[in-house]
Amino acid sequence: MTMHDSILLEHGGGGLLTHDLIDKIFLPLFHNPCLERREDSAVLNMQGQRLCFTTDSYVVSPLFFPGGDIGSLAVHGTVNDLAVSGGSPIALSCGFIIEEGFSLDQLHKICASMAAASQRAGVPIVTGDTKVVPRGTGDGIYINTSGIGMITCNRDISVEHIRSGDVIIVNGTIGDHGAAILSVRENLGLQSHPLSDTAPLNGLVSSLLATGSQIHCMRDATRGGLGAILAEIAGQSGFQMTIAENSIPVQEDVRGICEMLGFDPLFLANEGKLVVFCPPDDADRVLSAMHAHEYGRNAAVIGRVHDKGQGRLILKTGIGGERVIDLPVGELVPRIC
Amino acid sequence: MTMHDSILLEHGGGGLLTHDLIDKIFLPLFHNPCLERREDSAVLNMQGQRLCFTTDSYVVSPLFFPGGDIGSLAVHGTVNDLAVSGGSPIALSCGFIIEEGFSLDQLHKICASMAAASQRAGVPIVTGDTKVVPRGTGDGIYINTSGIGMITCNRDISVEHIRSGDVIIVNGTIGDHGAAILSVRENLGLQSHPLSDTAPLNGLVSSLLATGSQIHCMRDATRGGLGAILAEIAGQSGFQMTIAENSIPVQEDVRGICEMLGFDPLFLANEGKLVVFCPPDDADRVLSAMHAHEYGRNAAVIGRVHDKGQGRLILKTGIGGERVIDLPVGELVPRIC
Repeated sequence: MTMHDSILLEHGGGGLLTHDLIDKIFLPLFHNPCLERREDSAVLNMQGQRLCFTTDSYVVSPLFFPGGDIGSLAVHGTVNDLAVSGGSPIALSCGFIIEEGFSLDQLHKICASMAAASQRAGVPIVTGDTKVVPRGTGDGIYINTSGIGMITCNRDISVEHIRSGDVIIVNGTIGDHGAAILSVRENLGLQSHPLSDTAPLNGLVSSLLATGSQIHCMRDATRGGLGAILAEIAGQSGFQMTIAENSIPVQEDVRGICEMLGFDPLFLANEGKLVVFCPPDDADRVLSAMHAHEYGRNAAVIGRVHDKGQGRLILKTGIGGERVIDLPVGELVPRIC
Repeated sequence: MTMHDSILLEHGGGGLLTHDLIDKIFLPLFHNPCLERREDSAVLNMQGQRLCFTTDSYVVSPLFFPGGDIGSLAVHGTVNDLAVSGGSPIALSCGFIIEEGFSLDQLHKICASMAAASQRAGVPIVTGDTKVVPRGTGDGIYINTSGIGMITCNRDISVEHIRSGDVIIVNGTIGDHGAAILSVRENLGLQSHPLSDTAPLNGLVSSLLATGSQIHCMRDATRGGLGAILAEIAGQSGFQMTIAENSIPVQEDVRGICEMLGFDPLFLANEGKLVVFCPPDDADRVLSAMHAHEYGRNAAVIGRVHDKGQGRLILKTGIGGERVIDLPVGELVPRIC
């Protein structure tokens, strides 16, 4: 608000400008304890039960991309936001905003993909709404999904529980979703495209919780990529954190696209990746549980939490240097999700 | 799908074409018992508690209109969908899709209006999401709100519970919201505009439930107006129903605008009106409770449920005739909510 009087694309990127909206408009006006936790899901106490509740709108372009489409993305994204709060997702809502003239065939394909994703994740779509906007005031289809989960684990999983010494683990290769979108959008003339990692993570999270490990914090690394999510968590928690570039799994074709286009996989979006913070004593158990799960085969320990301090995230680069990773202003690739 | 291969504005109007999408795409693909009830809210059983869950996207144009704006509408609409399921609304989510270039001042105004509406209804906005789409792929701002409520009354309130002999009651004048939008959109050169009736109905519903009356079914009469909602309920329930035109409250200025433009207030949207179905013995209690509430001063008994049959809604016209009211194809006024 200090520097702008109208909305920029970056206001929707999950970076500094999104936080600016949250800090200057949403939190002061809507203020309540749930919102102020700034987690992906609100946690509600309802007569002794703890529910989590979350919402996301999906505006990805193109609607169909290697490895997925807006429909599967809209199911997975919201399921994952619930799962990383320690919640078992129970039900999803679905709100369509469709542009006049959109193909009914494509709508059918997208809904079939949502239905398959919802069945695979075991989370039904129980309520919905459809609005149609005139030609030229939309872009095919936008989808909002909101979700409810039940928190059964007796520990609160949130940034507040991160402790000095915690190990940082990621469940696999990063940047796959961003690279998949880029590869089709930028017309790179590739023989084959990297596939989006879009996947439901509630099963993986259940198996992590079932190990009995102390999981202090979990977050899915979507918009802004692993770099933005960890920089945000470091800032929120006030702890110094380091991650080692060499230990972060990246697929070869994703690395190739990044080199071609001058991107860093650290800031490319993921749609099936989460970071876990746990005490070092639990790291092996968490890692083994991940390795045993189809969405965790390439899991790796990538960093550490140090002392309380300025809440900075430091990257130890492959060539032995150190670099502070700041929350980006917006996101590298707009309309990634 | 039989007659169309692409989305028409009417597919989003809540009428026949919306039902076509529901019957031919959404229900077959997403099939589950919650969705199949076809109520405004899904009812979920969670460890002995009953929750209701609903979603709506708001694409109203203009964003600011006499009596309200997209922000207050987005809060009231979702609160009301929960309330008519017999649920006490507990929390709302809010998903913004904002067009690049939208004024931050206007965003602030809309959020202030949402905050005021949320406070007035006593329902906090606990989680949110912001996406920005490039210029030309939106229309200022679209808002999705989803909501969770807790059902405390021990009876299920739904179309299935409508019985022969039930009385049909509306809580006040109809068509106010539609007329307010029309009056500013159509440039009628009016000295004064009718005001939208946008209002939270959870307080009114609580006071109705507190009377101990047997409320069989409630529905808010939004898109398509009272006519479309009652035709839909008649069709779903299979009961014949009659309503008497003379008994339906309509404000003078709304009637005037309808005459000028050739509209019927029966099909103009409301945003603070609900219909109640209850046994005749309870009608006086329900009516008195409505009259005692600020959002029910002009409540009236408008009709009756007859025998099971073809599920048709019949209007007894002011001049003594009878007319079958069918579910309209779409809505008279697009982007009304």
